Amino acid sequence: MNVTKAIETRRSVHDYTDEELDDDTIEELFDRVKHTPSGYNLQPWEFLVLRDEENKQRLREQAYDQEHVTDAAATVVVLGNTDPAAHADRIFADWLEKGYLPDEETRDGLIDQVEGWRERQPAENRVWTTRSTALAGMTLMYAAWEMGIASGPMEGFDQEGVREAFDIDEGYEPVMLVTLGYPEDGAENLEGPRRLRRPAEEMTHFETFDPDPRGEPAEEAVRAEASADDDD
Amino acid sequence: MNVTKAIETRRSVHDYTDEELDDDTIEELFDRVKHTPSGYNLQPWEFLVLRDEENKQRLREQAYDQEHVTDAAATVVVLGNTDPAAHADRIFADWLEKGYLPDEETRDGLIDQVEGWRERQPAENRVWTTRSTALAGMTLMYAAWEMGIASGPMEGFDQEGVREAFDIDEGYEPVMLVTLGYPEDGAENLEGPRRLRRPAEEMTHFETFDPDPRGEPAEEAVRAEASADDDD
Repeated sequence: MNVTKAIETRRSVHDYTDEELDDDTIEELFDRVKHTPSGYNLQPWEFLVLRDEENKQRLREQAYDQEHVTDAAATVVVLGNTDPAAHADRIFADWLEKGYLPDEETRDGLIDQVEGWRERQPAENRVWTTRSTALAGMTLMYAAWEMGIASGPMEGFDQEGVREAFDIDEGYEPVMLVTLGYPEDGAENLEGPRRLRRPAEEMTHFETFDPDPRGEPAEEAVRAEASADDDD
Repeated sequence: MNVTKAIETRRSVHDYTDEELDDDTIEELFDRVKHTPSGYNLQPWEFLVLRDEENKQRLREQAYDQEHVTDAAATVVVLGNTDPAAHADRIFADWLEKGYLPDEETRDGLIDQVEGWRERQPAENRVWTTRSTALAGMTLMYAAWEMGIASGPMEGFDQEGVREAFDIDEGYEPVMLVTLGYPEDGAENLEGPRRLRRPAEEMTHFETFDPDPRGEPAEEAVRAEASADDDD
């Protein structure tokens, strides 16, 4: 499946078949996800994959009882490590080894810099980990869709409840949930009309930034939107 | 280009040719980006596209003088609206119109809910907008790469400086910068050895979450990593 088709046909799916996602499929999927870019290549993401019915049910209870959490073959808790330096030693050792850094002093300077980020406000490190981890979440959904696996991203859940239910310590930010599974024939969100998307003309700004703060589109954008074939 | 190839061959590029990105190309690109999923389909992203040399230079001054900011044909400031309700009225009107909501009361309840998020701590809304906006940033990079356009995501820049330089008000979070352009033959980051990626076995956890807090891989993961063909 080409990239454009994946982008244009991927929709958030809630209706899944009973077909399971086996270990090999999950591994194949995350072997793609790992290539996601991240700031300084620090890769702060972790993925808690739930396929066990009891565990999916425990997660569902923290996600406003949304049925697709348990209907999905797997639901993934996408987690971001809030320690920027968790993997810094080996990442920068790798850069040095491969010739991307001139010497050990430069490597040590980078490690020091990233370790220094531990002293930032916790809110900064939450934003930091959310940024790179969401990039990985998006890769996950496109990679899955090419494999025929539909997905449903969710941000509506009780963060603290999820932490407690799965013993996730404070060093990890639950960034989003992603349900995964093979879509049912006629799944509502694959077959139904596509939801509105803000048109390119509205969301792009050239050289100066002058959006309407309430996002009201310019008149020409409204016309484009009226004919847009959009999705969720 | 299929999705897997796009994921596996996309790398962060700093070396660009002089070829420009014309208006039609930019529009084609963002016509794909708009399909990115977001929480409640609220699409908080905005994109400030800089092609003018003087503007790219002003941005570069806020980005630790990194050359590829001006070498790129276009550098995009990826912005997240921190007002969750900016587009709520028309998004939920669209859901009602297309039959995704049973009645106006439900629509109004959703609008009220999202408007209520305005009262959350500013830090919560920063995390909220970073999440969906980063998803759009990832789509941008894959869509570009399929069009032959290389990209370079950057989080190293002075947020306040960028705000001031481009008159971006506090309602928008500068989430990341993305340089865009056609890659030079032999661009270092396309030709050089691929950088380490954490292997799938290390970053996935089944049913229980038990990472080593410093991300030390299990022994089998180390073996897999040693043979990994990875990228930045």
